[in-house]
Amino acid sequence: MKSSLICVAGTEEIITVNVDLGCRSYPVYVGSGLLNRPELLSRHVHGKQALVVTNTTIAPLFLDKAIKALQQENTEMTLETVILPDGEQFKNMESVIKVFDAAIEAGMDRRCTFVAVGGGVVGDICGYAASSYMRGVNFIQIPTTFMSQVDSSVGGKTGINYRVGKNLIGAIYQPKCVLVDTNTLNYLPNRELASGIAEAIKCGLVKDGKYFEWLENNIQALLARDPIAIAYAIKRSCEIKAGIVTLDEKENGIRAILNFGHTFGHAIETSCGYGNLLHGEAVAVGMSFVFWVEVVLLIVPDLTIFITATGDTIEANEELQEGEELLERANLEEGEEQV
Amino acid sequence: MKSSLICVAGTEEIITVNVDLGCRSYPVYVGSGLLNRPELLSRHVHGKQALVVTNTTIAPLFLDKAIKALQQENTEMTLETVILPDGEQFKNMESVIKVFDAAIEAGMDRRCTFVAVGGGVVGDICGYAASSYMRGVNFIQIPTTFMSQVDSSVGGKTGINYRVGKNLIGAIYQPKCVLVDTNTLNYLPNRELASGIAEAIKCGLVKDGKYFEWLENNIQALLARDPIAIAYAIKRSCEIKAGIVTLDEKENGIRAILNFGHTFGHAIETSCGYGNLLHGEAVAVGMSFVFWVEVVLLIVPDLTIFITATGDTIEANEELQEGEELLERANLEEGEEQV
Repeated sequence: MKSSLICVAGTEEIITVNVDLGCRSYPVYVGSGLLNRPELLSRHVHGKQALVVTNTTIAPLFLDKAIKALQQENTEMTLETVILPDGEQFKNMESVIKVFDAAIEAGMDRRCTFVAVGGGVVGDICGYAASSYMRGVNFIQIPTTFMSQVDSSVGGKTGINYRVGKNLIGAIYQPKCVLVDTNTLNYLPNRELASGIAEAIKCGLVKDGKYFEWLENNIQALLARDPIAIAYAIKRSCEIKAGIVTLDEKENGIRAILNFGHTFGHAIETSCGYGNLLHGEAVAVGMSFVFWVEVVLLIVPDLTIFITATGDTIEANEELQEGEELLERANLEEGEEQV
Repeated sequence: MKSSLICVAGTEEIITVNVDLGCRSYPVYVGSGLLNRPELLSRHVHGKQALVVTNTTIAPLFLDKAIKALQQENTEMTLETVILPDGEQFKNMESVIKVFDAAIEAGMDRRCTFVAVGGGVVGDICGYAASSYMRGVNFIQIPTTFMSQVDSSVGGKTGINYRVGKNLIGAIYQPKCVLVDTNTLNYLPNRELASGIAEAIKCGLVKDGKYFEWLENNIQALLARDPIAIAYAIKRSCEIKAGIVTLDEKENGIRAILNFGHTFGHAIETSCGYGNLLHGEAVAVGMSFVFWVEVVLLIVPDLTIFITATGDTIEANEELQEGEELLERANLEEGEEQV
């Protein structure tokens, strides 16, 4: 995984992580104040129409900045906005329809660009709408939560919840770029920051012991929003994710390792009702459950453990075995990298 | 474009046209009685669950045969069916939702296969649903109309009509295989056969003068459903389409040549109301309009011609110029092939 650090005189550093997927490759830009660097976005917006999708929480904070960044070097750009209600419970077909309708009413053509400004929910809705509007239009991610910056904005998974299922309808659809302005985290509630850190910890656990150790040693700096620690955690998490996505974009095998703790996590999240437990919190509980089962099985190897949370019963042993096989393959297929 | 002819002792010939798209490559099987050859389908169905999507016209004719073909070599296969109402007016989000609901109710997982048995409308709905269900599941096309056999089942374009727009929502999503049993045409109304022939003529016009001549000379044989003529027209049309799709899967350039006559055709089709004019009939009118404009412009070169059919006004001259540029590129980028 190649990353680069570009220092431009008089400006902040920009870290670039490349997601290598042949003709679908794209950069993840990470840095402080990147919403003030319109040249980063203008490289990736080729048409003259853009649709910004955001939510009621994010709009007052960053919508104007995002619009300015999109229009500054592209003065002929016509721009429309969809402001969705905030919350996982709105990650549904109705929200996707709202995005389609706004695009149609604005007369957006095949060369338009959909831009997600917000957390994972906004990115998922906007990305899935982009994958389906006119059989696929350009798409840019501007994630504003730590969770979406370290995880969900990278790798192209988009989707909505449908009836009983989380992310049951969706597409693997890669953005043209991901722009992470770490200043957006200044407005993030502590609980949401901690939830995102859980996904960063997952990255360390599944792929990079040294990064896991680094997270252990720097957890206070992350919680205190130290800009250098935050930028490094985003960079390293994105590198790990990009490396795995490059090997298995469509999740036919190894990419499933990134779901570590998620089977149990999703079950817990659903049983608590969406919005009561944050995604990262559920994943953290899920991961700790995996370790608890591992320890129990060391003591009582023949035990079969079932977990029931949503009506579906999961056999813990089977899940663990699959996870272990994937972990083994992850380290065989891509050498562990130095931090 | 490589095609092959396989003769198996005691059975009919199978023509195979390969659509070369790297890891998304797939075969188009063409022949008489191929629904009686379950080994062709079983090569491409890897999971143990299949969802057959068809309509009320096609179900009494071919559903049992298709189910038998899917289950014969895969006896553990669980199979569900969605029978949609017949007609372009049902190519909408409600039909896609019906497919999702059937898949969810049957507990279909990521390894399931969606199978479209019908014409272009069924293929479009089923294909788009397959592209979005669990972020994309396997998909097989069994086209039963001449239109879908020579054109719409190949190349991965899927989509539904949405509000004012034809195919406004959809995906480019390739099937795992296309199985064309030419016996299905025995039940096709003459008007629909003629509509399909219009798309075959378009293939000749845009890419292969010799094939166009062949169509001129064999039009009576095609209308009389001569099996050899029918099979050859399907083969050659699929080869031409596959060759162009290989160069430009996502229609960023040259693939637009396959829309020859379609800008005007769609306008006429929409203004007549869906279902009153068949797609191929509209395309035929559209193509003949293009030639009429060409002739008029030879006589009065400075004339600017506008056509208004659906409220949108199309400038004919601009359309023609774009079409001519594409035609030139089509012949530069892929050498003309021998029939």
